[in-house]
Amino acid sequence: MPNQTHPAFPPVADQLDLITKGAAEIIPPIAASAPEALAARLEDSRRTGIPLRIKAGFDPTAPDLHLGHTVLIRKLRHFQQLGHTVIFLIGDSTALIGDPTGKNVTRKPLTREEIATNAETYKEQVFKILDPAKTEVRYNSEWLDKLSYYDIVKLMSKFTLSQMIEREDFHKRFSNEEAISLHEMMYPVMQGYDSVMLECDVELGGTDQKFNLMRGRDLQRDAGQPPQIVLMTPILEGLDGVQKMSKSLNNAIGIHEPAPQMYGKLMSINDDLMWRYWTFLTDLPQSQIDAMRSRVTSGELHPMQAKKDLAHAITADFHSPAEATAAAESWATQFQQKGVAEDAQHFNVSIRDVITADAVSLQHAEANLNIAVHVDIARLLVLIGISPSRTSAAKQVTAGVTIDGIKTSEKHLVIETRPSTFHVKVGRQQRTVTLT
Amino acid sequence: MPNQTHPAFPPVADQLDLITKGAAEIIPPIAASAPEALAARLEDSRRTGIPLRIKAGFDPTAPDLHLGHTVLIRKLRHFQQLGHTVIFLIGDSTALIGDPTGKNVTRKPLTREEIATNAETYKEQVFKILDPAKTEVRYNSEWLDKLSYYDIVKLMSKFTLSQMIEREDFHKRFSNEEAISLHEMMYPVMQGYDSVMLECDVELGGTDQKFNLMRGRDLQRDAGQPPQIVLMTPILEGLDGVQKMSKSLNNAIGIHEPAPQMYGKLMSINDDLMWRYWTFLTDLPQSQIDAMRSRVTSGELHPMQAKKDLAHAITADFHSPAEATAAAESWATQFQQKGVAEDAQHFNVSIRDVITADAVSLQHAEANLNIAVHVDIARLLVLIGISPSRTSAAKQVTAGVTIDGIKTSEKHLVIETRPSTFHVKVGRQQRTVTLT
Repeated sequence: MPNQTHPAFPPVADQLDLITKGAAEIIPPIAASAPEALAARLEDSRRTGIPLRIKAGFDPTAPDLHLGHTVLIRKLRHFQQLGHTVIFLIGDSTALIGDPTGKNVTRKPLTREEIATNAETYKEQVFKILDPAKTEVRYNSEWLDKLSYYDIVKLMSKFTLSQMIEREDFHKRFSNEEAISLHEMMYPVMQGYDSVMLECDVELGGTDQKFNLMRGRDLQRDAGQPPQIVLMTPILEGLDGVQKMSKSLNNAIGIHEPAPQMYGKLMSINDDLMWRYWTFLTDLPQSQIDAMRSRVTSGELHPMQAKKDLAHAITADFHSPAEATAAAESWATQFQQKGVAEDAQHFNVSIRDVITADAVSLQHAEANLNIAVHVDIARLLVLIGISPSRTSAAKQVTAGVTIDGIKTSEKHLVIETRPSTFHVKVGRQQRTVTLT
Repeated sequence: MPNQTHPAFPPVADQLDLITKGAAEIIPPIAASAPEALAARLEDSRRTGIPLRIKAGFDPTAPDLHLGHTVLIRKLRHFQQLGHTVIFLIGDSTALIGDPTGKNVTRKPLTREEIATNAETYKEQVFKILDPAKTEVRYNSEWLDKLSYYDIVKLMSKFTLSQMIEREDFHKRFSNEEAISLHEMMYPVMQGYDSVMLECDVELGGTDQKFNLMRGRDLQRDAGQPPQIVLMTPILEGLDGVQKMSKSLNNAIGIHEPAPQMYGKLMSINDDLMWRYWTFLTDLPQSQIDAMRSRVTSGELHPMQAKKDLAHAITADFHSPAEATAAAESWATQFQQKGVAEDAQHFNVSIRDVITADAVSLQHAEANLNIAVHVDIARLLVLIGISPSRTSAAKQVTAGVTIDGIKTSEKHLVIETRPSTFHVKVGRQQRTVTLT
């Protein structure tokens, strides 16, 4: 019965629609007709009724998840929704090495105790997105800690130094004569070995993980297994729309943030970023997102409405639809009270461009310290297009500027924490500003 | 009683005399007055009565020992003679990696079975020189096989890639874009760890082992042990006096060769090499070797006698004084029968310089195959200074040349195996020739 399909899995074309949504790169590419490509494996699993095994590894190092982390976790959920087996792999033993990806320094290895604590926090957060009942939680200490000296020698012998130096960050550090400790080269090897032990069909990771993800293919081939498909999710931009979302850059939305705060932050992003967030942070099919965008372009739909829908959808995901609705209402009320138009043009402004020229403020901004700094309101008015020149801006400041509904003639605005979103009104001109 | 000396150990100056004889390099140098230098440690052991721990590691890969290998083993015996503890370390677990020193290719790792067999053969041969009762035979599998994944990660973290690339052969291979497998970088680390586990005071090795020997110092320091002294023995030249002694270069004397063959081969070396062999292959104090050399220079002692004494001493070492004497007598008789002067001038000649110009012979010589090749006798006569020119040489060949007592007018001499030593006589002129 070679063509019998298993009722549990949707048709392959539908599965591919969801799986490829927002994927940055898939290896081998979807178009490839190789027997081990994704479409062929999906066909196989429909025929046999055996779900694919989807792995994503997590270093239990940063247990405070933000929306940037959820792009990948959401992709895991897609596989789960389609009936496949998701393996949430906690790299407790690789964390003892500390993968240096993206950093030019050697990470301090975590202790077993730190790892255990972090892993628990990680699971608790991840199960806000994944279905615990359908998730295989594994620790790579299960097999890595059992490796003998001889096993490690054999695994290491499968790779050459030149291959390792091809890894972008190793290459950069090696060229710059920065130290690379020998144990760091064990990391990609062990990550690859995880895939062998878990017999993965697909491994997910960020685009910055490509080198490590590919090593699983090498070792699986060597072990006589079909090499896993590598699916990479993009690195999500933070609220500023430019830099990678990161807690330390103050441009992140944590998944534990209260609904009103989450909703408000999402309402502060610009329109371009809104479409990316629709793709990477919601399950709406890409075709429907494209249709919505067309309606905005044609003027049929106001972009503010699309943003409200996005903020509602994401907030509902991490809290509840009721809480999201409450957050939306409180946000709208706040705007009405301030007398600010909801659809005021939105600007992302870097603190460095509007800071007062005193040394301490500059230093704080440079050091990216979250300490009160003074913003020069006249400079800001020019930057957000309310005033044509510094001279006219200075006059407008003297005449009075309304910030978050409060009229002031002060030259400086004190910003306590960043990012800070507020509303500026001069006469009939209104702007929403997010200072980062 | 801090100055009490233990009766078992000779005075430090005497110990240093024997220990430093023929050492290529000692780190830290003997002149260094560091608290951890050799002299200080010898003083300590005399005071405490605790022998020093002297390690030499052997890859159980080449169990057919020749005199080149014995330079280091003899140095171990010196320490043993002085009352110290010699550790003959069989690197059974490092051999699973295969140290690539001196080769530009990755060695094929040995199997456990091959290693066990080789180790037994090694011991049997080494105990022709070392006293088994005073030798601690160890296998590094004792501790390396117990290393966990985490232990290996920690050990590897102590070294950087740049440090490894400093190793000459790694550097060369890396620059030439030749493959270095990752497991090869584990070798120096594990060799260093052996020293920590054995708490070595001194490690011996060839000069080509310097990089690996130094790693023991690093890891001992890290483990809070005084770093071992590194004593390097030179690489011994083979019978040709030029290339490293090696079975594959056909210039070696195996320690299992019969006494007459050993004696004869030793008699074939040139005078310069004789003095090096006196230093590296006998226990005669260097001062006495120097005195002998002076007597040869002054004409008081014939160099042939010094060579006979050397050949006798070494042959006696591996067989017995009686067998050495018998070999010497049979050698002398052979010469008398051939009517060749014992003190004929000796020449080492490369086969490439005297081979007939036919393609097959050239090819055999190039490939260093031990297959019969044709020597052009006229070319040989010019090379060993019997004939002033090819023309006069050709005339002498026609008139007849005596080779090993047999007169011939053939233009070619067939050499079956190399090195081959024979005697050439034309008129009153005599030469001993070793063809390699």
